[in-house]
Amino acid sequence: MRNINEDTITAAVLESLADTPSPRLKEVMSALVRHLHDFAREVKLTEQEWMQGIEFLTATGQKCNDKRQEFILLSDTLGLSMLTVALNHSKSAQATEATVFGPFHVPGAPVLPLGSDIANGARGEPLFVDATVRGTDGEPVAGAVVDVWEADAEGLYDLQRTDLDHPEGRAVFHTDGEGRLHFKAVTPVAYPIPTDGPVGTMLEATRRHPWRPAHVHFIVQAPGYETLITHVFKDGDAYLDSDAVFGVRSSLIGDFRSHPAGVAPDGSAQPVPFHTLRFDFVLEPAAAG
Amino acid sequence: MRNINEDTITAAVLESLADTPSPRLKEVMSALVRHLHDFAREVKLTEQEWMQGIEFLTATGQKCNDKRQEFILLSDTLGLSMLTVALNHSKSAQATEATVFGPFHVPGAPVLPLGSDIANGARGEPLFVDATVRGTDGEPVAGAVVDVWEADAEGLYDLQRTDLDHPEGRAVFHTDGEGRLHFKAVTPVAYPIPTDGPVGTMLEATRRHPWRPAHVHFIVQAPGYETLITHVFKDGDAYLDSDAVFGVRSSLIGDFRSHPAGVAPDGSAQPVPFHTLRFDFVLEPAAAG
Repeated sequence: MRNINEDTITAAVLESLADTPSPRLKEVMSALVRHLHDFAREVKLTEQEWMQGIEFLTATGQKCNDKRQEFILLSDTLGLSMLTVALNHSKSAQATEATVFGPFHVPGAPVLPLGSDIANGARGEPLFVDATVRGTDGEPVAGAVVDVWEADAEGLYDLQRTDLDHPEGRAVFHTDGEGRLHFKAVTPVAYPIPTDGPVGTMLEATRRHPWRPAHVHFIVQAPGYETLITHVFKDGDAYLDSDAVFGVRSSLIGDFRSHPAGVAPDGSAQPVPFHTLRFDFVLEPAAAG
Repeated sequence: MRNINEDTITAAVLESLADTPSPRLKEVMSALVRHLHDFAREVKLTEQEWMQGIEFLTATGQKCNDKRQEFILLSDTLGLSMLTVALNHSKSAQATEATVFGPFHVPGAPVLPLGSDIANGARGEPLFVDATVRGTDGEPVAGAVVDVWEADAEGLYDLQRTDLDHPEGRAVFHTDGEGRLHFKAVTPVAYPIPTDGPVGTMLEATRRHPWRPAHVHFIVQAPGYETLITHVFKDGDAYLDSDAVFGVRSSLIGDFRSHPAGVAPDGSAQPVPFHTLRFDFVLEPAAAG
């Protein structure tokens, strides 16, 4: 510890972690230090770059408030969020795949009866969703709790709008006795993630676009099954091959069908064109223990 | 990009950086992504740990203000600051080694005549510093600008005290025609880095102490030479082998001598015991270019 140089410092920092009581914390911190130091050594980080990094991270923390989480956005755009999802949900081939949670979920969305319209004022082309929830054994899951949320036709979630005092584009449903679920929503559109913070600066500097392909978010929960956090993406979207947060998986691209104005699946007369979506969620049995 | 999983995601993120105009930014960002992903894969980061990391980084950014830089403290305590210093200042064997800058420097300290007392009210046992500045060729460097700062006997820098309206324990001197420098100060003591933020929480969780061995900070600048940012550490300090920020280098441990009350090197009568320090700074010639 008295002869610190670029070769000896990593061992010195690891040694300082020797008495960490939690074996897991010790493992995570030690790996973090090794990889952080390897990064700095590999690129021979300059002192100016180090200071730019300090300032970037500080600004990222200071951009966060109760409606904005810039560090999650940074993790999303560096692929760390999706990597963490993938590391923790390597399911059987039959089960529906997970993807990023994103920063726009709000707990306590209104619980609505099947067939309801979740828009609640959100603008957009009508979408009629018809879905099932089953286990990997093919058995329908009755009473599954399905949390749905989406952006409106302008690509904004309700909590990004300062003029709203009620939820729009979000609801919770329970599947019926056959594991079925149907509701009305708005057809999702591609939208840019927020770019007015440090993450936007990073995207601009690396000439990356901020767009996400159109999608609807789902959390599906039922006793005896692993909770599924996922999206259904709209097929044909121009950004399916370049999602700014790396969340696309082929199995999550849904079959959205376009229909002219006319009679909707719920029997209502639609004066404008609309879409329908069929999707089947397949849940993994809960891990024993 | 449509089949993101834990094996394919790193290539997808690297591909997204392909159009980065600055080759250096592309190099640094690509290495950052590879090492960040390797870290997550190696420890199989859980979603709960990921969220703890997001919350820790957010709190670290939000702890920063105009007098507190918690991200520098984090970098210091993870050894990244000292590693960056070491990567950028691999000098010839004769030159004085660099160490961490730290968060307590204030630009624009008062320029004082040689022989002055930098304490300006700061409490502590008197210290009489006698130093020289030379080049690696042995030539004295006249007119070198030497910025000095230190904590007081309670281990606090002036900017950590809310009751002060004037600088204490900091000054700028110019070496004389023989490259000499002498001034009065206070004998430095070991002190803990601030622990009332996320970094303190990290140190506690890993059972690390927050102490730094006693030291005086110096920046030495002169035309034709590389700027030197360093400390002189007090020999015999109990924390020389466990500096919380990994800044100790054997060559920077100074020869502090203890004296009983009596006549000081400047001829003054000292009614209390005092220390003297002799140290020679050796500057590297500036790199061509």
